[in-house]
Amino acid sequence: MAVYTTLSAARLAALIAQYDVGELVSAKGIAEGVSNSNWLIETSHGRFILTMYEARVEVSDLPFFLGLLDHLAAKGSPVPRTIHDREGTPFRMVGSKAVALIEFLPGISVDEPNPAQAHAVGEALAGIHLDAADFAGRRPNSLALQQWHDLLSACGREGLRSIDAELPALVERELLYLTANWPQGLPRSVIHADLFPDNVLLLGEAVTGLIDFYFACNDVTAYDLAVTHSAWCFARDGSFKPAIADALVAGYVARRPLSEAEWQALPVLARGAAMRFLATRAYDWLHTAADALVTRKDPLDFARRLSFYATQGVRAFPR
Amino acid sequence: MAVYTTLSAARLAALIAQYDVGELVSAKGIAEGVSNSNWLIETSHGRFILTMYEARVEVSDLPFFLGLLDHLAAKGSPVPRTIHDREGTPFRMVGSKAVALIEFLPGISVDEPNPAQAHAVGEALAGIHLDAADFAGRRPNSLALQQWHDLLSACGREGLRSIDAELPALVERELLYLTANWPQGLPRSVIHADLFPDNVLLLGEAVTGLIDFYFACNDVTAYDLAVTHSAWCFARDGSFKPAIADALVAGYVARRPLSEAEWQALPVLARGAAMRFLATRAYDWLHTAADALVTRKDPLDFARRLSFYATQGVRAFPR
Repeated sequence: MAVYTTLSAARLAALIAQYDVGELVSAKGIAEGVSNSNWLIETSHGRFILTMYEARVEVSDLPFFLGLLDHLAAKGSPVPRTIHDREGTPFRMVGSKAVALIEFLPGISVDEPNPAQAHAVGEALAGIHLDAADFAGRRPNSLALQQWHDLLSACGREGLRSIDAELPALVERELLYLTANWPQGLPRSVIHADLFPDNVLLLGEAVTGLIDFYFACNDVTAYDLAVTHSAWCFARDGSFKPAIADALVAGYVARRPLSEAEWQALPVLARGAAMRFLATRAYDWLHTAADALVTRKDPLDFARRLSFYATQGVRAFPR
Repeated sequence: MAVYTTLSAARLAALIAQYDVGELVSAKGIAEGVSNSNWLIETSHGRFILTMYEARVEVSDLPFFLGLLDHLAAKGSPVPRTIHDREGTPFRMVGSKAVALIEFLPGISVDEPNPAQAHAVGEALAGIHLDAADFAGRRPNSLALQQWHDLLSACGREGLRSIDAELPALVERELLYLTANWPQGLPRSVIHADLFPDNVLLLGEAVTGLIDFYFACNDVTAYDLAVTHSAWCFARDGSFKPAIADALVAGYVARRPLSEAEWQALPVLARGAAMRFLATRAYDWLHTAADALVTRKDPLDFARRLSFYATQGVRAFPR
C-alpha cells in the first residue's frame, strides 16, 4: 500500500481540468499498488484512478503500458482504458513525475479464490494473450533469466543464507537447471507477468478487471500461465491447491489451447516463475530498510513453491 | 495515511451483507484518518466509508460519536450520517475491532484555503454548535488543560529540549499562564475539537462535509473556534494569514454571534488550542518509533503558533 506523494487540491483540480471528464468531486488517496501513488477520483462524469508513477516505472515504458491497456480494452478484454487528455496524450507530467488517468473498474480482489473464480481468471488471461496478438508495442522482459541471475548474485550467498540456511543451495541448483533447460521456440506474445490475486477484480465469479500491467512485456506466452499458477494455486500455509490449479489451467485452455510443447514446458516455466519472484523478493528483503513504508514480502514463500515445482511440476499442471 | 488492518473480500462481503445497502461492488483502502483504517466502499446502492476503529478510539465512545453524526445530519449540518445495520445498530464488531459504515460525502480537502472557503468553514462550525444544542450525548474533553500538563510532563524537560532548546521554557511559562487564566463561565456545547483542513470537504467555496468527529466532546464553544483558527490561519512557513482569520471569524459570527466575554477570551483560548496540539505532537514525536506507518507531525509548528497567540492574540481575532 502506498501514497508516496501528496497532491494539493489546487494541483489536482488543475490536472483534472486537462481532461474532458467534468468537474472534480472527490479524491481519496488509495492504498493500492506497491510502487505507485494512486487516487480514486470522482468527477461529475464518473470515477477514475489517477496513478502517479514513482521510482520503479520508467516514463519511457508508459506508451507501451498505456497503449496496451487501450488496445486490450478496445478488444473487449476486462482491462481499464487510459483516459487521454484534451490534447490526446495518455500521460502528463506533474513536476518530475508522470501521471495517468485510468478508467475505474468495479470488483474486489479475493485472497482465497474458489475454483470458478480461478477458471474465470484462466480464461481472462488467455483472452489478453489472444487480444494482444496485433498490438504493435514491444517491450523486453526486464525480469527474465539473466536478471534472476543478476539479482541473486547481488544478494550474495551470505545474504541468501541470512534469509534461510538452505537458500543458497536451492538457488544455485535451480539457476543451473533453468539455464540449461529454459525452453526455446515456444509461442510468444504480450504477457501480464504479474497476475497475482490483488491484480484481478472480481464480482462473484466474473472477472471485471485485470489491472497493474506495469510488468507487461513480450515473452513466452505459457510463462504467463506459469506465473499466474505460482501466484494463485498455493494456500497461505504453502500447500498446493490442486482444485484451483485444475480450474485455472482448464479456464486458460478453454480459450487458448496449449501446444504439446507448451504442456511439456509448463513445469520448467513454473520453476522460472517461482525463481523470478524469489529473486526480486530476496533482493528487496535485503535491500529495503525495515522501516520503509512498503511491506517486504517473504521470499521463502516462493522458495517453497520453487521446490514444489522442481519435484512435482507435472502434477501441478493437470491436462 | 493508514490502513492498519486488512479485510479479506469474504469478510468484507459478509460485513456489508449485514446492512441494507445492496451488493458489494468495490472496496479500496483509503489513506485517510490518522488513527483508523478506512475503506471507500461501493455497493449497488451507493458509496460509503467503512471505518475500522484502531487503538485511539474507545468503543465506549462510539455511541456518542456516531449518535452525534446522526443528530447533526438530521438537522441539516454537512456531516455524514451513520448507516445502521439491519438490526438498527450503528456499529458492529469484526473480531476485536469495531467498525461503522458511514455516508460518503463529496468534496475535496484543501490545504491552502481562500477567504471565501474560510468564511464557509466558520459558518459550518457555528452550525454544528447550534445544531448540537439539543443532542443528549455527553463526553468530557479528554484533551483539556489537565491532559496538556500530563502529556508535557510525560515528555520531560529533556525530551522537550531534544525537540527544541527553547521549548521547555515556552511550555512552562504558557502552562502557568493558561492554568491561571483559563476562562470560566463561558457558553459550552458539543465541539468538534479537531477541525483541521483535512477534516473539511469543500466543493468550490461550499462546505460539503465536516468529518472525523473522533475528538468531539462537550467543552467551551468558543474554544472550538480557537482550535479551528489555529489550524487554518497560518501559512506553511508559519506566518499568520490575517485575511483567512478575518473570513473564518466573520463566517462564524454570521451564524453564531459571540458574547463580549467570548471575544475577550479568544486569545487565551487560542493559546490553549496551540498548547493542545503542541502537547500531543510533542508526546507523539518522542513516543512514536521513527519507523512507524504514521508520519509524525512537527510539534514546533504549534510552538510557533503558541508564541504568536501569546504576543499578538488580540490581532489574531479581528472584530
